[in-house]
Amino acid sequence: MMTSARGTIAPFDPVARELFDELAGWPIFDPHSHIDPHRPAARNLDEILGYHYYTELAHATGMPADRVGPGLDPRTRSLHLAEYLERIDNTVQYSWLMEIARTFHVFTHDRIDPQTIGDLYDRALRDRDGEEWDRQVWKASRLEAIFLTNDFDDPLEGWDTAAYVPCLRTDDLVLKLHEPDTIDRLRRSTGVDVQDLASLRVAIGRIFERFASRGARACAVSLPPDFIPRRAAPRRAVTPVRRAIQKMDLRPDEHEEIRTSVFWMLAEFCAEFELPFDLMIGPVRNVYPAGVAGGRDLFDRRVSLYEYRELFNHFATVRFPVSTLAPDAGSELVAYSWIFPNVLPMGHWWYSNVPAYIAADLKARIQALPKVKLLGYYSDAYKLEFILPKFNMYRRILAETLAEECVRERGWSVDRALQLGKVVLLDNPRRIFGRNRLSPGAAI
Amino acid sequence: MMTSARGTIAPFDPVARELFDELAGWPIFDPHSHIDPHRPAARNLDEILGYHYYTELAHATGMPADRVGPGLDPRTRSLHLAEYLERIDNTVQYSWLMEIARTFHVFTHDRIDPQTIGDLYDRALRDRDGEEWDRQVWKASRLEAIFLTNDFDDPLEGWDTAAYVPCLRTDDLVLKLHEPDTIDRLRRSTGVDVQDLASLRVAIGRIFERFASRGARACAVSLPPDFIPRRAAPRRAVTPVRRAIQKMDLRPDEHEEIRTSVFWMLAEFCAEFELPFDLMIGPVRNVYPAGVAGGRDLFDRRVSLYEYRELFNHFATVRFPVSTLAPDAGSELVAYSWIFPNVLPMGHWWYSNVPAYIAADLKARIQALPKVKLLGYYSDAYKLEFILPKFNMYRRILAETLAEECVRERGWSVDRALQLGKVVLLDNPRRIFGRNRLSPGAAI
Amino acid sequence: MMTSARGTIAPFDPVARELFDELAGWPIFDPHSHIDPHRPAARNLDEILGYHYYTELAHATGMPADRVGPGLDPRTRSLHLAEYLERIDNTVQYSWLMEIARTFHVFTHDRIDPQTIGDLYDRALRDRDGEEWDRQVWKASRLEAIFLTNDFDDPLEGWDTAAYVPCLRTDDLVLKLHEPDTIDRLRRSTGVDVQDLASLRVAIGRIFERFASRGARACAVSLPPDFIPRRAAPRRAVTPVRRAIQKMDLRPDEHEEIRTSVFWMLAEFCAEFELPFDLMIGPVRNVYPAGVAGGRDLFDRRVSLYEYRELFNHFATVRFPVSTLAPDAGSELVAYSWIFPNVLPMGHWWYSNVPAYIAADLKARIQALPKVKLLGYYSDAYKLEFILPKFNMYRRILAETLAEECVRERGWSVDRALQLGKVVLLDNPRRIFGRNRLSPGAAI
Repeated sequence: MMTSARGTIAPFDPVARELFDELAGWPIFDPHSHIDPHRPAARNLDEILGYHYYTELAHATGMPADRVGPGLDPRTRSLHLAEYLERIDNTVQYSWLMEIARTFHVFTHDRIDPQTIGDLYDRALRDRDGEEWDRQVWKASRLEAIFLTNDFDDPLEGWDTAAYVPCLRTDDLVLKLHEPDTIDRLRRSTGVDVQDLASLRVAIGRIFERFASRGARACAVSLPPDFIPRRAAPRRAVTPVRRAIQKMDLRPDEHEEIRTSVFWMLAEFCAEFELPFDLMIGPVRNVYPAGVAGGRDLFDRRVSLYEYRELFNHFATVRFPVSTLAPDAGSELVAYSWIFPNVLPMGHWWYSNVPAYIAADLKARIQALPKVKLLGYYSDAYKLEFILPKFNMYRRILAETLAEECVRERGWSVDRALQLGKVVLLDNPRRIFGRNRLSPGAAI
Repeated sequence: MMTSARGTIAPFDPVARELFDELAGWPIFDPHSHIDPHRPAARNLDEILGYHYYTELAHATGMPADRVGPGLDPRTRSLHLAEYLERIDNTVQYSWLMEIARTFHVFTHDRIDPQTIGDLYDRALRDRDGEEWDRQVWKASRLEAIFLTNDFDDPLEGWDTAAYVPCLRTDDLVLKLHEPDTIDRLRRSTGVDVQDLASLRVAIGRIFERFASRGARACAVSLPPDFIPRRAAPRRAVTPVRRAIQKMDLRPDEHEEIRTSVFWMLAEFCAEFELPFDLMIGPVRNVYPAGVAGGRDLFDRRVSLYEYRELFNHFATVRFPVSTLAPDAGSELVAYSWIFPNVLPMGHWWYSNVPAYIAADLKARIQALPKVKLLGYYSDAYKLEFILPKFNMYRRILAETLAEECVRERGWSVDRALQLGKVVLLDNPRRIFGRNRLSPGAAI
Repeated sequence: MMTSARGTIAPFDPVARELFDELAGWPIFDPHSHIDPHRPAARNLDEILGYHYYTELAHATGMPADRVGPGLDPRTRSLHLAEYLERIDNTVQYSWLMEIARTFHVFTHDRIDPQTIGDLYDRALRDRDGEEWDRQVWKASRLEAIFLTNDFDDPLEGWDTAAYVPCLRTDDLVLKLHEPDTIDRLRRSTGVDVQDLASLRVAIGRIFERFASRGARACAVSLPPDFIPRRAAPRRAVTPVRRAIQKMDLRPDEHEEIRTSVFWMLAEFCAEFELPFDLMIGPVRNVYPAGVAGGRDLFDRRVSLYEYRELFNHFATVRFPVSTLAPDAGSELVAYSWIFPNVLPMGHWWYSNVPAYIAADLKARIQALPKVKLLGYYSDAYKLEFILPKFNMYRRILAETLAEECVRERGWSVDRALQLGKVVLLDNPRRIFGRNRLSPGAAI
């Protein structure tokens, strides 16, 4: 049913290969994903190929968006997408797909294309296996814990939150408070009659309580490049927040005041509930509106962590794992992590999740940052199957970096290099994302 | 007369060497140069050493600009420049020179310096050979097609436009419409009595017709870092354009309105004539006015493709091969090419045309972008002789990248790696720059 | 007393190792440090561990600042810091410490930790050796010359200025003229009754005379990212400068006018006294006020040398060795050094002083810039002991770059590669920092 054959390719260099063989046998602690805990593994190949990495890359080569439109049946969508896979068969994204096919579906062809897609589709049909399939993928990937991305009104019920760890995603609160739906959801999920800044705070406090008591171990937000965290001035925010709640039109400066105030409030609750606050800096939403779902966002590379200084200074007790979207911003994150105790270099995000960028960043982090601050990698996956190939990609780069930088250059033993690998991959994520104030028992 | 000996040095790594030996035998398709089709190869060494790469580097080490001034005779200029070559004999630019000397002029000395320059000058005298020399260099370099940089009033007559492919360069129209000479040239070359925005459009339409019917396969423009393409508002542009044509003084916002409107109009014609629109983003002209000719321009690295979003969205049918001048902007181009179907990563331009920068960019492009979008390299050359050493530099980096990334890391066969190389170097440029609406026969 | 054993680790690659073995035997010319010439080597381990690289990294992992506070005795501070060294034992900064311990103190343990710190502290006690210890470290490191960082009111007396070369640091004049202390120090040290712009110029002229006559060979300043050098407009500056001297409150535009005017005046004196003007671009001071001493400054990566164009054009005779703090700004410095004769790429500064960043920058510099402009490395050290391990780190990277780029890729002989290494490490720094107008005898 599931092959034990290694679907991934080990590094060429023998020292790196030895390191990788070890790393690849370790459990995976994944501090950021978009997994649905009610349906974590893919029930069919369409749920794999529907990942925006494939639809957007295919679309970028000319595939019309409606070839994978929501109105089509899953098998048809997969057949359509397969027509475009040859165009991206050089990419690391395609290599994840091959590793999934080989590792989880005993696929033996060299390519996924219109000739072989039918076979693969059949092999990947897991509807009847249901939760048993989830468990098989979990076990084959040696998963230990996966962090989710939960809306603030997620009831957080119906799954094992020690395995599928809740993480409070707060983009809606910070960036969309003025949208009618947000306030309605907020009232419904908290029972608070939100009418103004004060009741907003009460409601958000309820959210944190619920998340913390259900074992959440992080709060997260993605922030556009023009966002500047400033110390909240509640008196200034009172009127804009009330106007937003009353669904009145807002001026740009009122929007700005609202997102600044809500963001600062969230940081205050992170301090109170002892939750790390993941900052995912850079995306601009809907830059390419005609793109496929999930493939419309980009960034403006002109960002600086200097804009975050007031935040980092004010919230000395809050740990901020930081991801930057612009690959060229990576070296600034090294410097800020070097100085601020509460700034931590998080995994390699989205457009930065390319081996060439990861390798350059990882080498600098290992050379210049305290090892106890290095936060390894996260999968950002929507389906369980992606976690293994993405982590294997990272573990391969980590093995090569440790081989070159530590064993070869510094003369370390392989054992010492492996210890550093463990700190980066497991010890730090387990410790830093190990608990919150209400669930201290989860700490490791 | 011309040695067959390989003037270039093959990669050290045996797999890369095997790949390079193959790549180096392929034809060259060069989608951007400044070659003069009436006099493509150098008639003497001064036309080689006069390339701004050498005069500006020599000047940057202390050579007074007048040592290579236009009033001197060609041999004297070459002797003068040779006095400074030892100072730059570490550079890749110098290595192109050595490869030209060895490949085309049977030069056997180890260095080009005041002792050997006389010999090389004599060897490189090709005045008597004339067009026969052009043909020899063409053949020895295995050239297939070279794109030119043609002013809008170039008559495009007197050469084989299938080999020396016209490309409409539009900097003068976008950035210098207010200069009296521009409008005069526009009137003369189109026969249109340009007086206002409407007649300007008619004149530019005539230009596109002429270029397209003469086999042009691209339109190109270089844009300063502060340029922001915005959707044209013809009503807003009417008055500034008329004032520019009437040679009246313009306010900064009027200049801005003019360049925005003309640029947008060009994109509209690119759509109509089905021409790729090469965007060369970043240069600021004349930053160092005391520099030698061609060596006065630099850039401001604070640019972002985010400013181009409206353009890329609006002109979905126009392909935009993009070059960025700031080397650190390369990773943003990867992300925009990943999402926008009509954005294509073009070759490595000018200050980014350094092996370390090319290698980093190329690796990321091969890892993250659909192979059908990778546009390889262009020479940017002013004389035919430079095409071979520049392309060999790129083919060496490509061979090393394919060897390391594809053969070693992913376990590909050498044949599969070569196929990818061919897609990058030949298939894509031939297809994307293969035709226009009026010359569909040129398509491949 | 001092081991001859090599404390550093040679490169793994045999060609790089051969090159490194040679480079490592050369003298060191160090054009920027913070050495105190009255007390150059460390008298005890606390003076080594007190280097901000260690206290700030330890603090960034959670060490409270008061664990190494000034009120503690030196041994206690060292013991406290040692408790945190395991957390940073992966870093290149820690490797400098190990090399110091092994090379200068015959330390034979594998780690510096709470168990071994006592032994190392005892070994490193050099109070009784005094100046003899300074001489030993100097000799063991094969030092030839070290540039200092001298305040403008430093009397420059009491040491051999051919070995410990004065360098006029001007941050106080440019950035703190409005602070009462600055004017008082200026009056006292120059004897000029500074009251206005004219007398300020007289005073600064006196400073340059004193420094030049005492053998200074550079002027230096660190500039924040928002600083834009503009041509001075003395008439505009008269009032703000007078108000600053009279200790009146200043508006932001007046502050700006003052720092611009003083900076421009310094460049004029550099021209007059024929002193290189080191520009250290990027730091913002006190971004993290709660940090340890020396560990509070960071940067905003959004800087461009384009802002410096007027300066570089105006002062054609002044050489500007430029350091950039943001690692991602390195490629722009390559381009500006390529064009401007008076812009020189200086060593790798602070947050850019990480092997991964150095290697990337160095490779591009060697590929694209005239060798006579490459300015190698500087230690930025506060104590003599750091110069050797830091230079060895750089020499290792240089050896690897020469091995890979020159010997392997271009087929150079090892001797030719070594010659290039000597140009970079010794010939250029000796020549460019060799003299000033009043001490031409110091030229080499």
